[in-house]
Amino acid sequence: MSNKWYLKDGGNLDGIVLSTRIRLARNLAGTPFPNRITPEGQREINHKVRDALINGNSAVSSDFTYFELDKLSAARRGAMLERHIISPELAAAQGVKALLLSSDESVSIMLGEEDHIRIQVLSQGEDLQDAFSLAQKLDILLDSELHFAFDERLGYLTECPTNLGTGLRASLMLHLPAIERLGAVERLAASVAKIGLTIRGTFGEGSGITGSLYQLSNQVTLGISEESAIENLKAIAGQIIAQEQSLREKADRLELEDTVFRSLGILRNARLLNSEEMTEALSNLRMGVSQKILRVPVSLINKLLYEGGSASLRTENETLENPRERDKRRAELARTLFAQV
Amino acid sequence: MSNKWYLKDGGNLDGIVLSTRIRLARNLAGTPFPNRITPEGQREINHKVRDALINGNSAVSSDFTYFELDKLSAARRGAMLERHIISPELAAAQGVKALLLSSDESVSIMLGEEDHIRIQVLSQGEDLQDAFSLAQKLDILLDSELHFAFDERLGYLTECPTNLGTGLRASLMLHLPAIERLGAVERLAASVAKIGLTIRGTFGEGSGITGSLYQLSNQVTLGISEESAIENLKAIAGQIIAQEQSLREKADRLELEDTVFRSLGILRNARLLNSEEMTEALSNLRMGVSQKILRVPVSLINKLLYEGGSASLRTENETLENPRERDKRRAELARTLFAQV
Repeated sequence: MSNKWYLKDGGNLDGIVLSTRIRLARNLAGTPFPNRITPEGQREINHKVRDALINGNSAVSSDFTYFELDKLSAARRGAMLERHIISPELAAAQGVKALLLSSDESVSIMLGEEDHIRIQVLSQGEDLQDAFSLAQKLDILLDSELHFAFDERLGYLTECPTNLGTGLRASLMLHLPAIERLGAVERLAASVAKIGLTIRGTFGEGSGITGSLYQLSNQVTLGISEESAIENLKAIAGQIIAQEQSLREKADRLELEDTVFRSLGILRNARLLNSEEMTEALSNLRMGVSQKILRVPVSLINKLLYEGGSASLRTENETLENPRERDKRRAELARTLFAQV
Repeated sequence: MSNKWYLKDGGNLDGIVLSTRIRLARNLAGTPFPNRITPEGQREINHKVRDALINGNSAVSSDFTYFELDKLSAARRGAMLERHIISPELAAAQGVKALLLSSDESVSIMLGEEDHIRIQVLSQGEDLQDAFSLAQKLDILLDSELHFAFDERLGYLTECPTNLGTGLRASLMLHLPAIERLGAVERLAASVAKIGLTIRGTFGEGSGITGSLYQLSNQVTLGISEESAIENLKAIAGQIIAQEQSLREKADRLELEDTVFRSLGILRNARLLNSEEMTEALSNLRMGVSQKILRVPVSLINKLLYEGGSASLRTENETLENPRERDKRRAELARTLFAQV
C-alpha cells in the first residue's frame, strides 16, 4: 500500500492550514445531466471516463482504481466519506455512482454526482497552485477524450447554477482555535461572505464543530478566472491566518501549554476515546506543534485523525460496529501511535 | 527532617481506608475550662503540658516541638490545618493556643482548643488499635503529671457534653468513589447515624466533596468503653468497605482503567493544576492501585495530596500566594513525582 497523501511530513505542513481541496464540476456535452439521465446513460459515462483515464496515455492516470459505489459495503463508503474522498451524495450510493481513486487517496474522480464528473484533489497544507494544476491536468486529459459541456459566454455548464463558469470549488481547511475561542468566527463568516467566500465548521460528527476546524471556500464561479478565484482565496486565508497567529501569540502561553500537554496525556492514557475527543486532542496537539510547544510529526497526528474516525475503524472488522469497541480500539491506536512522542 | 507519617509504603496501605485518626479530649482538674479561663491560666496550662511531655521520662516524648499558634504565620497555620494537624479553632489562633507536634506530624497535642488538651494521633490505613494505644500512652503520661478532670460516674469531663465520658473521637478516612457514584452516601449516612456513627465528606476546599473521601467517626462517648467504641467503628467500616469493594468489582473494568489512566495522564502532563483536580486525580490513582490496575507507591500519592495542597504550597514561598502560581507549582510537583510511574 502506497503512502496516503495525509501522511507526509516536513515543509510547513504543521501550520494553521491543514489541507487544500480543489474540486472541478464537469458534464459531458450533448448528454442529459445526471438528474435527467437514465441509469444506463450514467453507467455508459462512468465507463467512458474510466477508460479515458486508465487507458489514457498519461503519467497521472497510472495508479487509479475504479469503484462502483453500490458494490462497496456501507462501512467502506462511510470511511471514504469520513476521509473526504467522496461526497455524501456518492456515499449514499443511490443510482449509478462510481469513483476513480488514486492509490494515495489524494485524487478522486466522482462519477454520477450532482454533475457527471467531479474531479477532486486533496493535499496537505496550503497547496492551492499545485493541487489546481493537477486537477487541471486531469481536466484536460478527460476533456480531450470526452468533450465537456462548455458555453463561450457562461463557461462550464453545471447542474447547479452556483457552479456555473469555472465549476471550481477551492477550499482550505483551517485550524482556528484562537479565533473560535474569541467568539469571532461568526463575524469572520459574515465578512468573508461579502467578498464571495464562505467559511464553515467541519469534521464534527454531530452538528457541533469539533477540533476548531473550518473550511474556507470560494463561492463565486461565474465571471472570474480560476486563477483569480484561487488568488482571492489565498489572500483572504492569509489574513485569517495572520489573525489566528496573532491571537495565539497574545494567548497565555502557560494555558496553551497546559491544553496541549493535557491532550497528549489523553492520547497516551485513555482506554476509551470517542472521536470528538480524539479530534479535539489532535487539534490541540497540532496547535502545540505549530506554536513550538512540542514536537510531534504531523503525519502521526493525521494518521490518527484520518484512520481513527468512526467510519474508518468500522472497516477494520465487524466487532467495531459497536461504538464502545471503537472507542476502545481508538484509544489503543492513540496509545500505540503516541507512546514514544 | 524525619519522614512524615503519610509517606510510608507497604502493608495494606493502598486500600479503601486512607488513614486513621484518634482524638482524646482532656481537661485539668480544678482549673476553669478554656471558655472561662484567663489567658494567663491557659498559658500556664500550655507550659505545664509542654514540660510534662518534653521533660517526661518517656520514649514517645522525645521528638516533640512546641509551637505557640499566634507566633506562626497564617500560611503555616493554614498548612497545618490542611494536613489535619490542627483544628480550625487552633488555626484561627485567637487567644492562647499552643501545639506539641511530633517530628513525623503523626501526633499533635492541641492546647487551648475547646478543651485544655486534645491529643491527636494520625496514622495510615486502618490502624485504630495502635493509634489508640499511642494516644493512651500519652494520655497516661500527661495524666500522671497533670491530673485530668474525671468523674467516676460520667468519665472524663469535657467542655462540650458530646465528648463527655471517653472524650474519644475515632475516625477512619474512607475512599468511597463507587458508593458515591451510586448516589448511596446519603442513605449510608442515615443508617450509620442510627448506630451512633457519623460519616461526612471531607478534603474539599469549598463545600463540595472532593476525591470521594469520607470520614467515618464514632459519636457516642458516654456509657461506652473506648474499646467498644473502636470495635463498633471497625465493624461498621468493614461493612462499608465490603460494599465499596463489591461495587468496584461490579463496575466496568475498562471504564475504571480509563478513569485511572486519564488521571495519571493529567498528573504527568498538566501545566496548571488546581487542588480539586489534583485530589480527584490522586483519588482515582489510589483506586487504580487498590484495584490492581496500576502500581504507584502510596507514599507518592500521599506526598502530592498532603504537600500539594494550597495552604502547604503557600508556605513554600511568597509567590505562591498567587493561585495561578500555585496551580503552576502544583503541576510541576505532580510531573516530577509521577514522571517515572
